Amino acid sequence: MSSTVSPLAPKSYPTMPPVRGVRMATAAAGIKYKNRTDVLLMAFDKPAAVAGVFTRSKCPSAPVDFCRENLPHGVARGVVVNSGNANAFTGMKGKAATALTAKSAAAALGCVEKEIYLASTGVIGEPLDATKFSGVLGEMAKSATGDFWLEAAKAIMTTDTYPKVATRTAKIDGVNVTINGIAKGAGMIAPDMATMLSFVVTDADIAAPALQALLSAGVGPSFNSVTVDSDTSTSDTLMLFATGAAAADGQVRVESADDVRLDGFRAALDDLLKDLALQVVRDGEGARKMIAITVTGAENDGAAKRIGLSIANSPLVKTAVAGEDANWGRVVMAVGKSGEVADRDRLAIWFGDVRVAVNGERDPGYSEAAASAVMKEDDVAIRVDVGLGNGQATVWTCDLTKEYVAINGDYRS
Amino acid sequence: MSSTVSPLAPKSYPTMPPVRGVRMATAAAGIKYKNRTDVLLMAFDKPAAVAGVFTRSKCPSAPVDFCRENLPHGVARGVVVNSGNANAFTGMKGKAATALTAKSAAAALGCVEKEIYLASTGVIGEPLDATKFSGVLGEMAKSATGDFWLEAAKAIMTTDTYPKVATRTAKIDGVNVTINGIAKGAGMIAPDMATMLSFVVTDADIAAPALQALLSAGVGPSFNSVTVDSDTSTSDTLMLFATGAAAADGQVRVESADDVRLDGFRAALDDLLKDLALQVVRDGEGARKMIAITVTGAENDGAAKRIGLSIANSPLVKTAVAGEDANWGRVVMAVGKSGEVADRDRLAIWFGDVRVAVNGERDPGYSEAAASAVMKEDDVAIRVDVGLGNGQATVWTCDLTKEYVAINGDYRS
Repeated sequence: MSSTVSPLAPKSYPTMPPVRGVRMATAAAGIKYKNRTDVLLMAFDKPAAVAGVFTRSKCPSAPVDFCRENLPHGVARGVVVNSGNANAFTGMKGKAATALTAKSAAAALGCVEKEIYLASTGVIGEPLDATKFSGVLGEMAKSATGDFWLEAAKAIMTTDTYPKVATRTAKIDGVNVTINGIAKGAGMIAPDMATMLSFVVTDADIAAPALQALLSAGVGPSFNSVTVDSDTSTSDTLMLFATGAAAADGQVRVESADDVRLDGFRAALDDLLKDLALQVVRDGEGARKMIAITVTGAENDGAAKRIGLSIANSPLVKTAVAGEDANWGRVVMAVGKSGEVADRDRLAIWFGDVRVAVNGERDPGYSEAAASAVMKEDDVAIRVDVGLGNGQATVWTCDLTKEYVAINGDYRS
Repeated sequence: MSSTVSPLAPKSYPTMPPVRGVRMATAAAGIKYKNRTDVLLMAFDKPAAVAGVFTRSKCPSAPVDFCRENLPHGVARGVVVNSGNANAFTGMKGKAATALTAKSAAAALGCVEKEIYLASTGVIGEPLDATKFSGVLGEMAKSATGDFWLEAAKAIMTTDTYPKVATRTAKIDGVNVTINGIAKGAGMIAPDMATMLSFVVTDADIAAPALQALLSAGVGPSFNSVTVDSDTSTSDTLMLFATGAAAADGQVRVESADDVRLDGFRAALDDLLKDLALQVVRDGEGARKMIAITVTGAENDGAAKRIGLSIANSPLVKTAVAGEDANWGRVVMAVGKSGEVADRDRLAIWFGDVRVAVNGERDPGYSEAAASAVMKEDDVAIRVDVGLGNGQATVWTCDLTKEYVAINGDYRS
């Protein structure tokens, strides 16, 4: 949690309505930080349907292992999240810590351990003293309230400079349902599943397999389309819970993701996921600019995304944007190194609405002044047309600044 | 060419002996820089055998296209290299520039254009005014001398802070042969072929196919094992020329790379290529530390190299080294994201001789003081044992500092 808030932070926060069926509490357990909350408990009054996507890292954290084991059960009663320690690469001690936490949470909530989900974020490799927060879970379960989303988002921050929340509504069977989400993340952000911690809860009544299908599809153009530094976390966790409380209003349980009744819900969920993912990019460590990179005309959508990520992860592109330099030659370089099919002489590149290159060379009408003006904005759009097919994708990243180096040269995160 | 020399620069330069059969000249053509040389001509007195490896970028520069076309011919009489402009992504103008340069060089040297090789380095996307240096090639051909290696290396520098030269000797048929090389490169350095400009000349008499086999094998553990910033240049060119002048001493022409007479030469060449490649890393933009990353125990050598490069290209690992922080958790992260098979609980990690992690968790005897002492050195060795097989590889990189951001946020390179 930095003392300086990102210049790209949201100008205001939405009012987060309660979601029927879930309550929350936070506590300051002193895991690493002083004078701030670092533990979050989410409690579901009744068993909630659950879906999750996790890091594809070959060295996942102990909580990721724990969640993966429980997910086939499909039911959640509680979630415990801590910041300050990732409980990653902690061997048997890490597994013991997740077991103790789950046991304490299950006791506090009156459920079984496989109905508990866990996530930890912070330093890798330090043993986590789970007794610090397992001792407070009983009290937290009692005090948990439904109107606590912003506080919940604050408790899970690490190098984040602002809390990340989003809310949407949709109708199923004519019944209003709410979707609320929180996220954290600022560094070690690269798309290879969920890439950070995010928890989304709805009061809709949707079965776990349908929920999983919605989430797995929704993560592609949102969390899996953002990168801060190309580094994939050991702890990436994105979970979606459905309390089913809307059944009381007459919403009939949805069993399949293909059910047309989910159309509005799917759109709202996808929009919320994108909102949260972009908030993470806007809080990228040291970020001063948001960069949206759209690739069109690629062989296929997958190729377009790989080209987009090659541009988004290029230190030379990101430092050029930091320096407000319309250095499109580096975009050419990043297209060229992506490994995807490209024909240099068909490439066209835009910064904002300014076409800077076409037919494999500088645009005949190139204006350095016009291109530079685009670079001075907080949000910079780069578009590349590969000129070969119909594949397209958009990815988002931030610039690479001296502050990124300062943050990560000092902080044992 | 920076005013501040990298702290990792060589303490002294070797005396570069002449290589019989090649002469050089440099000139200041004012392509971009003021008050410095920016054109190099290498002239071979007799047709030299030639081999080359080039960038795998899908958007290669015009000179790379030109060299690739000529290479099957197998004979070189001249090389023209300029700094200040990469002649990359310059469309038909770029092709016209290479044609004009080759024509001028061929006229100056009395040969045909397909015996000329070209390389350009500098800004991408700006049209190159080849008349600027094609006009001086005639005079350069006349004044070229054999004792000019350090000056040659200086003329091709861009953001380099020091010239890069290396020399080795070997025996073939009992005849002494010399291998001299120069290189440039500091940023946009990632291994996907040659990754920068480098020209190596020997007086040995070796046929072009054998020369190519030697070079293609030699680039793997040298230039293709270094990275500064994961960004692959559009202009990567590494060429090896054999003037054959040693034939005058009785060296019988070597036709095949499998010839046992090449054993000593191969070892000397490989050593020279590694020397030049590591000089490039030591001059990495903003570098203050050299990092050697050795991966052992991987499934195979290819997997070991990919894991090594995943660590070497991680901004979080590189900023940790910049901050002298023994943050081995980020090494775990980079192993995990590499996509290669890994078993968290078999991993072991060393900083220098200090084992910091073993069996999937922090080493029981971990000493922060000992690990931190390693990080204070100019050269930091990181070793990872994956614990699965016999694959191993070593790759080299540098740290990521605020100076890298400063250099690349300002410089339209």
